Amino acid sequence: MESLREGVWNAELIDPSGSRRAKPRRIGLTMVIDKGLGRTAFRDMIETAGDYIDIIKLGFGTSALYSHELLREKITLCKQHRITVMPGGTFLEIAVLKGLVPEYLDTVTRLGFDGIEVSDGTIDMPKEVRHELIEHGAALGLKVFTEYGKKAWGSKLETEALIQTIQDDLKYGSEFVTIEGRESGKGVGIYDEQGKCMGGIIEDVLAQLPDPHVVLWEAPLKTQQAELINRLGPETNLGNIAPDDVLSLEALRRGLRADTINGLIRKAGK
Amino acid sequence: MESLREGVWNAELIDPSGSRRAKPRRIGLTMVIDKGLGRTAFRDMIETAGDYIDIIKLGFGTSALYSHELLREKITLCKQHRITVMPGGTFLEIAVLKGLVPEYLDTVTRLGFDGIEVSDGTIDMPKEVRHELIEHGAALGLKVFTEYGKKAWGSKLETEALIQTIQDDLKYGSEFVTIEGRESGKGVGIYDEQGKCMGGIIEDVLAQLPDPHVVLWEAPLKTQQAELINRLGPETNLGNIAPDDVLSLEALRRGLRADTINGLIRKAGK
Amino acid sequence: MESLREGVWNAELIDPSGSRRAKPRRIGLTMVIDKGLGRTAFRDMIETAGDYIDIIKLGFGTSALYSHELLREKITLCKQHRITVMPGGTFLEIAVLKGLVPEYLDTVTRLGFDGIEVSDGTIDMPKEVRHELIEHGAALGLKVFTEYGKKAWGSKLETEALIQTIQDDLKYGSEFVTIEGRESGKGVGIYDEQGKCMGGIIEDVLAQLPDPHVVLWEAPLKTQQAELINRLGPETNLGNIAPDDVLSLEALRRGLRADTINGLIRKAGK
Repeated sequence: MESLREGVWNAELIDPSGSRRAKPRRIGLTMVIDKGLGRTAFRDMIETAGDYIDIIKLGFGTSALYSHELLREKITLCKQHRITVMPGGTFLEIAVLKGLVPEYLDTVTRLGFDGIEVSDGTIDMPKEVRHELIEHGAALGLKVFTEYGKKAWGSKLETEALIQTIQDDLKYGSEFVTIEGRESGKGVGIYDEQGKCMGGIIEDVLAQLPDPHVVLWEAPLKTQQAELINRLGPETNLGNIAPDDVLSLEALRRGLRADTINGLIRKAGK
Repeated sequence: MESLREGVWNAELIDPSGSRRAKPRRIGLTMVIDKGLGRTAFRDMIETAGDYIDIIKLGFGTSALYSHELLREKITLCKQHRITVMPGGTFLEIAVLKGLVPEYLDTVTRLGFDGIEVSDGTIDMPKEVRHELIEHGAALGLKVFTEYGKKAWGSKLETEALIQTIQDDLKYGSEFVTIEGRESGKGVGIYDEQGKCMGGIIEDVLAQLPDPHVVLWEAPLKTQQAELINRLGPETNLGNIAPDDVLSLEALRRGLRADTINGLIRKAGK
Repeated sequence: MESLREGVWNAELIDPSGSRRAKPRRIGLTMVIDKGLGRTAFRDMIETAGDYIDIIKLGFGTSALYSHELLREKITLCKQHRITVMPGGTFLEIAVLKGLVPEYLDTVTRLGFDGIEVSDGTIDMPKEVRHELIEHGAALGLKVFTEYGKKAWGSKLETEALIQTIQDDLKYGSEFVTIEGRESGKGVGIYDEQGKCMGGIIEDVLAQLPDPHVVLWEAPLKTQQAELINRLGPETNLGNIAPDDVLSLEALRRGLRADTINGLIRKAGK
């Protein structure tokens, strides 16, 4: 598809930053949160922006709220476009609360999901349970995304605990660790009450990891996406992106939008 | 449809709160505001979320702005899915201002709407006119939703006047009284300038009504929906819900989302 | 289409303000920003709201991010509905930065765009370059929209510089001058940090222009749209309107929505 577009637009106009690579990619991942898109809207998103989406999360428990058949179509479309698809972490937390983890994971795999999110944003979860869930998911062949952070308003990151959690999660089989940003992007994790990134923490954490690309930052607001791209580069992994914002984000990554042009294009040395 | 989904997901995972009932229901109503959805988006919404929508309001005067044929399709789809459909209250206020109430109601019934909203959010309206409009609508076989509250920024509820209005409206034939929240959810009715619910008023009002379920709270913001569900229970009637938020709201009602899990699931005693 | 609707609704109910005219119109223009709509969503928008859209901007560099074929369909639909279609000004700024202006304009005209936006919101651009770009675009038969204002947070309008720019731009071949409001509508141009219009400037500028209708105000927020309509009348040119808001804006222009009823209907003298 990229090649088709290149026939129309000069390659430098398509990616002024000169940094984006095609799928499947290991870095520069974009994870979308679908809070219940209809059939046509989902198809539209895949057609228009499928090349720029690496993971789709069917947010919290919404995948249980529409028809089995629509859910199957979404999962099938994701597979056809090399997009990992998983239910929201909250849904697994409910299964834990209800003592229904085996039933839950059985349904998830039977439906064809190929990822799960393991989180403890809402419930208290002993470390052992977290590690068992990671191992269980990985053993079923699912890509495991663990999440760090509480969903409660005002919950802040603690650098040491985060680094320890990342190291443990990876050891048990997690592939990526997402940092809680909720869907609103305000007052949790690395964001203050206005949704601005709090200085310093991010670089601190990344400096202490052997591979910074295991981290996926939930960044629902455009200002957050732009700031993370300007600070960490266009190949930063970003998550909880709204379906309508995928192309805008891709434009930010490539230096095709005001907020990142000066940083990215000048870096690209033109 | 619920039964189909139950074949896939464990019933406790579909509704951890154990409280949701199927349509037609008298409580736990969800009213959506459509500000001009296109044909496909409307069909998508009905397919994906029709089971969770009880009323659709075609906001303010938008139903006069697209083709008659599209309007007919929307109305027909609502009827097929047991959804009450009505034009926005502002449109009737304009008919009052212009002296065109009979023409307006004639068009509304000929088009197949089965509800109307009677409000005085923008214009001054003597009580007698309000009561006549309610009687007129009810006599035509329309479900009448009256609205309490002014749309102007900073308009606050007055408890006594509200209770008096509810009692009068019901007497004249209104089925539900909606409490103004606008589409923005800020600085009107029970919401302060940040859109937070102001303490106390809600419970005060409900305690003085024989049937609290005649009230339908306009709650466009997710934080408002979560707070009202946590305070008043999952079967609270909520309105002015954006089309994209219907499944999120249903997840909140069922305890399938972080904001209501702790309240609802623990109440369900599991 | 208007005539069809009039057969259903009384004409005074369709346009209480009595001021809206059909396309093609020179005043009361609505410019939509498309940040990457899918195929069906775009068709929906044109079907539902095409009568009320005069210009569509395919925001910043997004037109290079989806398939050539989808881009062609969007452009064709615009032509069929007498809508001017142009890429975002940021895209041209990138072409300037990269030294690719001729290639850029060649692609734009070959694709069938019939408008361009000339801006310097992000890069520094000598006046001579701006004027050359305007002349170049006009010579290619494109409608030229120039933009005044910087995209950086806190950039304010300077009245004198704005008036001088408008006069110069028109002289070189620009048809309209848009005033920067970004997509967020906050902290730039005539808007303060909360997105409110700053008093006085607008009227100052307009009073000094021979024809105030050469100005097109970017007004992405509903409060801004309502305020500009109430201050400058329903036939003010407004831009950066979100696709979902076109019918709401049209309702505001006609006095079919609370925020403008009192001003417009009373002015209409009924």
